[in-house]
Amino acid sequence: MQRAHVYIRTPALSYPVVVGTRLSSELPALLDEAGFPPHVALITSAPLAALHAGSIEQAVQRSGRSVTRILIPDGEAAKSTESYLAALGGLTKVGSPDGTGILALGGGAVSDLAGFVAGTYRRGIPYAIIPTTLLAQVDSSIGGKVAVNLSEGKNLLGLFYHPRLVLSDVTLLSSLPARQLASGMAEVIKYGLIADAGLADDLERDADRILAKDADALASVVSRCVAIKAEVVGEDPYDDVAGSGRRAILNFGHTIGHAIEAACGYENLLHGEAIAIGMLAAVEISHRLGIVPRDITGRVKAALDRYSLPTRIDASMGCSIESIIHHMKFDKKFRDGVHRFVVLERIGSARLDARVGPELIREVLADRGAPRG
Amino acid sequence: MQRAHVYIRTPALSYPVVVGTRLSSELPALLDEAGFPPHVALITSAPLAALHAGSIEQAVQRSGRSVTRILIPDGEAAKSTESYLAALGGLTKVGSPDGTGILALGGGAVSDLAGFVAGTYRRGIPYAIIPTTLLAQVDSSIGGKVAVNLSEGKNLLGLFYHPRLVLSDVTLLSSLPARQLASGMAEVIKYGLIADAGLADDLERDADRILAKDADALASVVSRCVAIKAEVVGEDPYDDVAGSGRRAILNFGHTIGHAIEAACGYENLLHGEAIAIGMLAAVEISHRLGIVPRDITGRVKAALDRYSLPTRIDASMGCSIESIIHHMKFDKKFRDGVHRFVVLERIGSARLDARVGPELIREVLADRGAPRG
Repeated sequence: MQRAHVYIRTPALSYPVVVGTRLSSELPALLDEAGFPPHVALITSAPLAALHAGSIEQAVQRSGRSVTRILIPDGEAAKSTESYLAALGGLTKVGSPDGTGILALGGGAVSDLAGFVAGTYRRGIPYAIIPTTLLAQVDSSIGGKVAVNLSEGKNLLGLFYHPRLVLSDVTLLSSLPARQLASGMAEVIKYGLIADAGLADDLERDADRILAKDADALASVVSRCVAIKAEVVGEDPYDDVAGSGRRAILNFGHTIGHAIEAACGYENLLHGEAIAIGMLAAVEISHRLGIVPRDITGRVKAALDRYSLPTRIDASMGCSIESIIHHMKFDKKFRDGVHRFVVLERIGSARLDARVGPELIREVLADRGAPRG
Repeated sequence: MQRAHVYIRTPALSYPVVVGTRLSSELPALLDEAGFPPHVALITSAPLAALHAGSIEQAVQRSGRSVTRILIPDGEAAKSTESYLAALGGLTKVGSPDGTGILALGGGAVSDLAGFVAGTYRRGIPYAIIPTTLLAQVDSSIGGKVAVNLSEGKNLLGLFYHPRLVLSDVTLLSSLPARQLASGMAEVIKYGLIADAGLADDLERDADRILAKDADALASVVSRCVAIKAEVVGEDPYDDVAGSGRRAILNFGHTIGHAIEAACGYENLLHGEAIAIGMLAAVEISHRLGIVPRDITGRVKAALDRYSLPTRIDASMGCSIESIIHHMKFDKKFRDGVHRFVVLERIGSARLDARVGPELIREVLADRGAPRG
């Protein structure tokens, strides 16, 4: 069975992302190698606990560690300040002050919250992530960004705080709804487009196996995405626009995608669905700037279609071109009315480009079906 | 007029601590040098705002920056999670998302809260500190530790997060109550004992001028303490017991002092008052271990008396030897029933010692007047 170890290198530490199947048997040894403390607080939601917590808690106990469960709300509600304070309250009741680490079991919302708890409790305690969605396995579990929402906006509280270990078990994806799998595939397709033409080819060739959740196919996809993100994050650990700016290419499709998410409503579109539309718009912009030929647009659209991802803004979503443009003004890549926009150079390569103004974005959004006004 | 610049060096950045008098005239240039953003959120309490905010806000505005005041509760209540969330709410209403920095005006509680806000808002925004107490100028403003209290315990939330600038204006101490000045002097005396015999001598010689808040005398004292803490913190930025452990010497008097604070009640003793008793106990322990002669105990007691600091545990404080010992068990320097205790080697030098068990601490606490049982 396929098993990959990818190491994330940060200025402060290096840690493994282990990708494979039925990994809970390896958890005890991996916790030992990570120097994990003797008391473990498992932070997860009730539905995920029902599916997966039993075998994971047994594995933690086999390692000689005690484990206490801290349940947080399901979905984005996990990232509220109320949930943050409740999780901290739970943590104060666990084990000895110096001997507790956090294990996050869930999607990006769970690990964002758990990582922020871990990074701020007693100036930082160890944590590990077992991501349960494809999106979390290929994206949010890697890179050290953790966050909590304020009522005034998403992710307004946050830190760079890295886990000691990420255990990406593709077996856990067997219970993932098809729409969630597709949402994760949008980020997978992004990695192919910006950094790995071979991956882009394979996603077209292996679509049937991936959509059927074939474990080997998923493990191959996840480990290649993790390797790409690990390399980019290693070059630009703090997403420093003034520095190498390398991490900015991970934003391919996200400048418009985030604005679509915010304008159309988070309840209407999953993250990957908004990113799919944003990526196709970014490819179209790259074409109109004369950087890529027309047929690339068709190929990207076909790939997104293959994974049942949306490529148009439906009028029923209730978001207009101007509402999307409005939300782009809050993107930190926006400077002086011109976006430092990530354009596609060819399949497998992307770069920042400063020539994208609001008019070009309006035109492309209109092509994607967004109503004017 | 005396003016000292001490640089704090951390793995990520280096920043100045400027010590002197009437420094608000220098604030515009210092904010520019620190690369401070165009919008400034001044975090302070209402009483401090009434005393000092006007001239500081004018200085910020002279630098071409806008300034918004965010008021937080006075005293330790500044560090509650409610105060944290309220300050964040205020921050979301200030200026542009990328262009805001925080200026903390106050004692250690204000800068602890403001630093935690700065460190967690949008993964960290710049902040600066204008400390208004002697304790904050010589201790809490230096070293990058920021924290918020949970109902379950003090400082349970926190980070290492450094300011871009500390402006320690001893003129601000003119409004400081005598008891607060004395509390700060306990930490000043600590620096003399652990690291600077010349400072210890000067504190005895210049006591009249210091107690009269002579600006030159205070500026000299503060800048020497800052230089000592800067050197220790530079060697051990993350208070890493497994590393150099150098920062541990700053805990001289604090292992017992913190336990006295917690056992006797924070409303009964100021931090420096508890530390004064803790330091005398630590000197007595150093003597009983045969490390320093008896006359050192007398000299330290005389210095503490000179600054009207307590050296005995009054029965009215309601704390017993056993309640103090109980609280020491939660100190992270406590391992296997034996404290890694900071002992005095001579005036001007301290080191960690592992031979201090609870029986010796009980004896010394009894000498300090603490009731048994």
